[in-house]
Amino acid sequence: MKNPLMLMIPGPTPVPEQVLFASAKLPISHRSQAFRDLMADITANLKWLHQTQNDVLILASSGTGAMEAGIINFLSPGDRVLVGCNGKFGDRWAHVCEQFGLITSRITVPWGKPLDPEVFRQHLEADQDKQIKAVIVTHSETSTGILNDLETISRHIKAHGQALSIIDAVTSLGICPVPVDEWGLDVVVSASQKGYRMPPGLGFVCVSPQAWQAYEMARFPRFYLDLGKCRTDAATHTTPFTPPVNLFFALQVSLAMMKAEGLSSLFAHQQRLMQATRAAVRALELPLFVPDDSVASPAVTGIAPDRVAPETLRFKLQQQYGVVIAAGQDHMRGKLVRIGHLGYVCDRNILTTIAALEAALSTLDYPCQSGAGIQAAHRIFNGC
Amino acid sequence: MKNPLMLMIPGPTPVPEQVLFASAKLPISHRSQAFRDLMADITANLKWLHQTQNDVLILASSGTGAMEAGIINFLSPGDRVLVGCNGKFGDRWAHVCEQFGLITSRITVPWGKPLDPEVFRQHLEADQDKQIKAVIVTHSETSTGILNDLETISRHIKAHGQALSIIDAVTSLGICPVPVDEWGLDVVVSASQKGYRMPPGLGFVCVSPQAWQAYEMARFPRFYLDLGKCRTDAATHTTPFTPPVNLFFALQVSLAMMKAEGLSSLFAHQQRLMQATRAAVRALELPLFVPDDSVASPAVTGIAPDRVAPETLRFKLQQQYGVVIAAGQDHMRGKLVRIGHLGYVCDRNILTTIAALEAALSTLDYPCQSGAGIQAAHRIFNGC
Repeated sequence: MKNPLMLMIPGPTPVPEQVLFASAKLPISHRSQAFRDLMADITANLKWLHQTQNDVLILASSGTGAMEAGIINFLSPGDRVLVGCNGKFGDRWAHVCEQFGLITSRITVPWGKPLDPEVFRQHLEADQDKQIKAVIVTHSETSTGILNDLETISRHIKAHGQALSIIDAVTSLGICPVPVDEWGLDVVVSASQKGYRMPPGLGFVCVSPQAWQAYEMARFPRFYLDLGKCRTDAATHTTPFTPPVNLFFALQVSLAMMKAEGLSSLFAHQQRLMQATRAAVRALELPLFVPDDSVASPAVTGIAPDRVAPETLRFKLQQQYGVVIAAGQDHMRGKLVRIGHLGYVCDRNILTTIAALEAALSTLDYPCQSGAGIQAAHRIFNGC
Repeated sequence: MKNPLMLMIPGPTPVPEQVLFASAKLPISHRSQAFRDLMADITANLKWLHQTQNDVLILASSGTGAMEAGIINFLSPGDRVLVGCNGKFGDRWAHVCEQFGLITSRITVPWGKPLDPEVFRQHLEADQDKQIKAVIVTHSETSTGILNDLETISRHIKAHGQALSIIDAVTSLGICPVPVDEWGLDVVVSASQKGYRMPPGLGFVCVSPQAWQAYEMARFPRFYLDLGKCRTDAATHTTPFTPPVNLFFALQVSLAMMKAEGLSSLFAHQQRLMQATRAAVRALELPLFVPDDSVASPAVTGIAPDRVAPETLRFKLQQQYGVVIAAGQDHMRGKLVRIGHLGYVCDRNILTTIAALEAALSTLDYPCQSGAGIQAAHRIFNGC
């Protein structure tokens, strides 16, 4: 029998069967009362998830499309932006900014280290004539497993008074607190295949009143990714272009399940999955790519194995046990493996992954104490 | 019992249950051999459907997103384009061109009339210094039910020697012949919720070698909708950004079903559905918005009722029989109803629609001979 695969990657993630079944319904017309009711319900729950009164708009796109929308709707060619770069996604946003002719200053930190809020403060305080129009921060850097200190950085952005915060919350929203109103976040981007426990295909952009003011001045040409059009139509619970209605069905079910669980329970669950994974990895004497627990992402854990080839380990896990973990990206390919623990992942999935990891390591003659990983995870799950 | 709805609108369309069930599978990693195999299979069948050796690229977007990609990847600000406008979608593409700073000449014809290829020929022949960089044509104009004479217009574009053809085939591909290579079409755009018999969420752009040459010179900033990135990754059967893998599962099944049926059979089926619908509408003495059979779209039939209010008729059909037909768009709202007969629609669906139409008309005291519509449709289905 060929092993059915279990996704332990940072997206796409496992999806509840109720959500999958909802997506398999016959499409409805997107110009109908049934669709408007669906979108109204979804929108209310999106605001709940973002802890905000701001608009949350839905695009038929990947997270990258939503992120591009978050940039081109609020800025103009030649604007100066500050981009935090400590992984593939921070680097990507800087690259996107340059593609669009923005004057892009990178605040760069080596992959696996957190962005230093102090450096943001210094740049922003030095900008006396308010040339910085936006600061782009990747909250959870999926390529490394870092959770950047968004709360402090956004406080420094607020103190600047002019610059918008544009936040990649793709692997933090629904996974750890992203209190949009409390932190005063202007533009927050996310995607369906991560904390939403959904298949990929939808992007989300949450927009503050201050960002809408900037929208009025923004001069990038845009049509498909024009968020103003989305806002106009969202006022009557519809979309400017044909929406992926089947993914909307799925989203409605998923958000309702998440709401029934409650935000604090969702976040505590993700925290426990991360702690159990990290405890197990430590017990197996595998080097965590982000050793400092206080900056570890609750979405994904990076491991930089030194006594076994990462790709061999990854291959073994998938080949023999059907457990799919992710490789390193860009220059970290072949140096890193990443265990995703976001989406519809439960304690059992972590135990399974650790058990498969132990089994694979023993096959590869990696010197570690058999059972140590499982015991360490077990202690976290039992609250010891 | 509340009537379950039957979609007879020009998208979203009915979808086979095999396709829906495929979309409800657990997502897979988009960086896996299983995904590459899936995408290779899909790509081969997309080329079959387009009757082409050109690239066919897949975007996570609506048809509008794909159309914008078809414009911004091959043109630069200030380029001159010719746009055929005889309905909402032609008008939209002209508007998109203007949004992006293209010098846009409209060839305008009243809604419900076909574009005149001769006017295209005159404009193109008059352009001695080859300033026209592209000609944009909506093949099947969904807002009215016109099928424009793309074969002749594209011959005139070819004769120009420089201008690219950019074709909206959203409601023609898979519904009537769009032989991309034979007609020498450069950029052909379509979307999943139409002839593909799929839920919405995917856009497609088919690109000729001549268009790729233009791509090298095109200077619009772009990232998410950059087709060059798609082409690079498509070479190894992958995508630059996370694809909606569940919609890919659905697409694989749908294309395989279509291929098993064969192109000529698909087209003949659509032709029959259109003929039966038009015969029935005529028999019921309802005015066809496009009276000329030779320019009628096989995707959608527009009716401009004169002795009954279109919105009352539409409401009645849906309220009492669950048959959903479309309203007129823009200035034709309240003046037109549109019956979609594209997607996974069979002869029975047409009979059902006509039967419901007859019943609704009789309730509304519309003077027509009861049963005449069904008989007329029946004659078409029986080849009389």
